[in-house]
Amino acid sequence: MKRAVRIGVMGPGDAAPDELEMAEAVGRGIAGRGGILVCGGLGGVMEAAAKGAALAGGVTLGILPGHSPDSANPYISITVVTGMSHARNLVNVLTSQAVIAVGGAYGTLSEIALALKSGRPVVALKSWRLKEMGCDDALFVDAETPQEAVEKAFQAAEAAL
Amino acid sequence: MKRAVRIGVMGPGDAAPDELEMAEAVGRGIAGRGGILVCGGLGGVMEAAAKGAALAGGVTLGILPGHSPDSANPYISITVVTGMSHARNLVNVLTSQAVIAVGGAYGTLSEIALALKSGRPVVALKSWRLKEMGCDDALFVDAETPQEAVEKAFQAAEAAL
Amino acid sequence: MKRAVRIGVMGPGDAAPDELEMAEAVGRGIAGRGGILVCGGLGGVMEAAAKGAALAGGVTLGILPGHSPDSANPYISITVVTGMSHARNLVNVLTSQAVIAVGGAYGTLSEIALALKSGRPVVALKSWRLKEMGCDDALFVDAETPQEAVEKAFQAAEAAL
Amino acid sequence: MKRAVRIGVMGPGDAAPDELEMAEAVGRGIAGRGGILVCGGLGGVMEAAAKGAALAGGVTLGILPGHSPDSANPYISITVVTGMSHARNLVNVLTSQAVIAVGGAYGTLSEIALALKSGRPVVALKSWRLKEMGCDDALFVDAETPQEAVEKAFQAAEAAL
Repeated sequence: MKRAVRIGVMGPGDAAPDELEMAEAVGRGIAGRGGILVCGGLGGVMEAAAKGAALAGGVTLGILPGHSPDSANPYISITVVTGMSHARNLVNVLTSQAVIAVGGAYGTLSEIALALKSGRPVVALKSWRLKEMGCDDALFVDAETPQEAVEKAFQAAEAAL
Repeated sequence: MKRAVRIGVMGPGDAAPDELEMAEAVGRGIAGRGGILVCGGLGGVMEAAAKGAALAGGVTLGILPGHSPDSANPYISITVVTGMSHARNLVNVLTSQAVIAVGGAYGTLSEIALALKSGRPVVALKSWRLKEMGCDDALFVDAETPQEAVEKAFQAAEAAL
Repeated sequence: MKRAVRIGVMGPGDAAPDELEMAEAVGRGIAGRGGILVCGGLGGVMEAAAKGAALAGGVTLGILPGHSPDSANPYISITVVTGMSHARNLVNVLTSQAVIAVGGAYGTLSEIALALKSGRPVVALKSWRLKEMGCDDALFVDAETPQEAVEKAFQAAEAAL
Repeated sequence: MKRAVRIGVMGPGDAAPDELEMAEAVGRGIAGRGGILVCGGLGGVMEAAAKGAALAGGVTLGILPGHSPDSANPYISITVVTGMSHARNLVNVLTSQAVIAVGGAYGTLSEIALALKSGRPVVALKSWRLKEMGCDDALFVDAETPQEAVEKAFQAAEAAL
């Protein structure tokens, strides 16, 4: 069985309007290329990305920190319920073939770090600027637009196969 | 968004022929009713159930214990990669609205116990006979055939909503 | 560095008086032999076992499911805070060189199963009667008294080295 | 029961000589103040910190990612075995009342982020320079020497009570 590419979108539940707009465009772009959107399943960037993907006809996977599927945002088509709070951040990134980070929260930073630790490529879109901190890892790239982020994420996912 | 019902099938990677046959029929029944099959993603009962569901056109979610999607059996359509070894058993049962246990391995017993602890209904098909140990929990029922197991699981999942 | 033997005591937070009495005797026995008591850190059997060990001068390790050390019972000398709810049951058993199960709750059953799955010996004291369900695993033994349980657990822990 | 203060030391398994020297001094300082050292239990910074603490007579808690206590470094007095790979990073930081980060690996970055997300104060010693990335969180402070790091960590742990 040929599986669809899984691209994660990581970002805060409490996000600024421009972050939400970018996340929705990223989700739309992932679904437009036939990818499955992976996210943390809650609000903010997670919901905006899922909305973009769902309205474009895509499959959206929401990996939840709590014990109930009821916390998922309305654009999640398949809920994964971990019951492990922030430890689900590891599941988010391992499940993704590449990760797009939007915005600068701590949870997002933990996901960037866990992704790089686990060999998953990361594209940063208005997120933590690790390059400026001396990080020259080939797995970490910046993007300026949602379209560029989606393109780089699919490229990285395919290169990692 | 109306989500499809998620039914888990839990059972050993090293299974007897009659267990595999039952698991495949269970998977077929879940897909036939429009449910998503949730399983541990590896071989044995997990693969047989996924095969039954996939060949019937269903979506199959494989929640893997390791760090790579490559360990998934070929009938898994969407891989979830946890990197948490047996702790993923909790994710298996929380993600499922009802669980069908096939066969009598220890991993399966841990999933039955975690499901009951978490309020997820369990249908046992040739599995651990908790009733005989004095367990009279309404969440735990036995089934004699794959068809009966699927029917009871969907009933329990709907009753739990 | 020679490490002290770590013996887990698993049992329900909501326990009967005779279970609490047995758990306290088990904890006292573990500390009396110089072992470290490992438990889930909360009330009921966990607290009784920790009380027995602490009052006998032993070290008590409480592996908590929540996000704060404040939920630990007062007899825990060292708290481990997992934030992973029932997934901490795996940490409980892997941390223990042998496990004594007291009483018959589902969480305890999950710990027995995860222990056997992971190769950790289990001594059952008025707990789930797996032998009657056909389990003839050498790692699973019954005990009739707290003293017998402690003795068998230390024997099993030493044999497993 | 009054519990000893638990201070985490997070840093890479593959570390430079000056990082190891700092980590050992940090461990010595923690034990000298009567604290319990919490770490990931493996080599590099984890081992150096545990060595410093153990040789000063302190208790050292090693929270391991694998399934066996055998991977612990020789200076760990109490092993916690999680079997959850990088998800144990969450256990490391939640178990610590304050965290000292030494060096700049990705695992360490994930621990800094998870600590801040979970409200655990972080002292960075030659580690990720989040201040320069605009992080002005009161929970995150830099230190120039091991002594300063230990002092700030104990202050933060006490302030957080």
